[in-house]
Amino acid sequence: MTGTLRGLGVGPGDPELMTLKALRLLRASSVVAYPAPKGGASFARAIVARWLNPSQQEIVIEVPMESARFPAQAIYDDAAATLAQELDRGRDVAVLCQGDPFFYGSFMYLFGRLAERFPVEVVPGISSLTACAAAASLPLLSREDGLVVIPASLPEAEIARRLVLSEAAAILKLGRHFAKIRDLLNKLDLARHAIYVERATLEAERVLPLDAVDAASVPYFSMVLLHHRGAAWR
Amino acid sequence: MTGTLRGLGVGPGDPELMTLKALRLLRASSVVAYPAPKGGASFARAIVARWLNPSQQEIVIEVPMESARFPAQAIYDDAAATLAQELDRGRDVAVLCQGDPFFYGSFMYLFGRLAERFPVEVVPGISSLTACAAAASLPLLSREDGLVVIPASLPEAEIARRLVLSEAAAILKLGRHFAKIRDLLNKLDLARHAIYVERATLEAERVLPLDAVDAASVPYFSMVLLHHRGAAWR
Repeated sequence: MTGTLRGLGVGPGDPELMTLKALRLLRASSVVAYPAPKGGASFARAIVARWLNPSQQEIVIEVPMESARFPAQAIYDDAAATLAQELDRGRDVAVLCQGDPFFYGSFMYLFGRLAERFPVEVVPGISSLTACAAAASLPLLSREDGLVVIPASLPEAEIARRLVLSEAAAILKLGRHFAKIRDLLNKLDLARHAIYVERATLEAERVLPLDAVDAASVPYFSMVLLHHRGAAWR
Repeated sequence: MTGTLRGLGVGPGDPELMTLKALRLLRASSVVAYPAPKGGASFARAIVARWLNPSQQEIVIEVPMESARFPAQAIYDDAAATLAQELDRGRDVAVLCQGDPFFYGSFMYLFGRLAERFPVEVVPGISSLTACAAAASLPLLSREDGLVVIPASLPEAEIARRLVLSEAAAILKLGRHFAKIRDLLNKLDLARHAIYVERATLEAERVLPLDAVDAASVPYFSMVLLHHRGAAWR
């Protein structure tokens, strides 16, 4: 009997935004794996730290700093091999996923390598999208509204093309791209409907109108949300 | 002292997909309100039934069958007035929201009427989007991928226009629109990458390729998910 690979969404940062199911399966897993920057702390582990048990084996998937966002696929080859050893021994392995496992989660690279060989269970988590909408008090979608989720790194013209077609938009992974996004939304006369959120659900959470944001200090974990009618309930 | 209005996301259906925070605040609220079809059972209430306490006052927001999806705004005027009475008496009111409160949730109509007069707390929930991706074993987004969420009731040409611009798509609220969506995806050569999910996380959950779906029996709570590369990890 091989073990089960579990991709557990642990939510955006507030430990209370874990689901009951993720917590139960976390506690039931002999092995707990999570990504961490080389030499740094794992954000996903910090979210669940209070529930970890000393008897659980922890496996750190070290991602070198310089490629933290787009890690080389070789890292996941190695990590998958390590987890496969545990699964072959019949041990259940929980992989911690900040937010949701399939919404920009690196778990999918392990899933892609292991799902054909081992039973897999994926537990959805609160994504940054709904966490930021709640933090911003912005009803996102109603009735026949559509939504686009757009990475801020795309070219301005491409972002504009996608933005105008849907009633609501989330532009994420802002970082150094913030000024480009702010200027584009001003040009499209959408900035007055846009709200900036960083580090949603953490103590350091900030919610601001676009013109109050210092473009030089925008972190990667941030998002601009907007609805073309101001809010979905209108 | 007035009470606090709480919009609690209770997730897509499996009670274990409640968050710890939603459960804590549900238990701490003197009043629990939820929508229900006239003469029928409330799906949101059923999700949390095991945690309700006889000492909690329940308020049913009755939505007439014929307008269950787009209820007349007068219903929310009345419901807001009822909840305001409780809040004015200093009682905390939890409104149960299937999925997430701001992701097609009717809570937003109460929020729009009450947020200026009373303190409000919104707890995000697992949305149908991430629940269906997990059910379908479909990694949705990686790196610079974008996503569109499209209601199936929109005109075919409008759906096509939005679909082709993003790497991933979720077409939801299928119901009687399923055949239109299936035919469109065939025409765009995207059907081979698409997965159909109905009633995600419930006992009756079904995950099927498009050509195995009987168009005549597709419920409102269903979704087609697709990624232009097949899956986001590729």
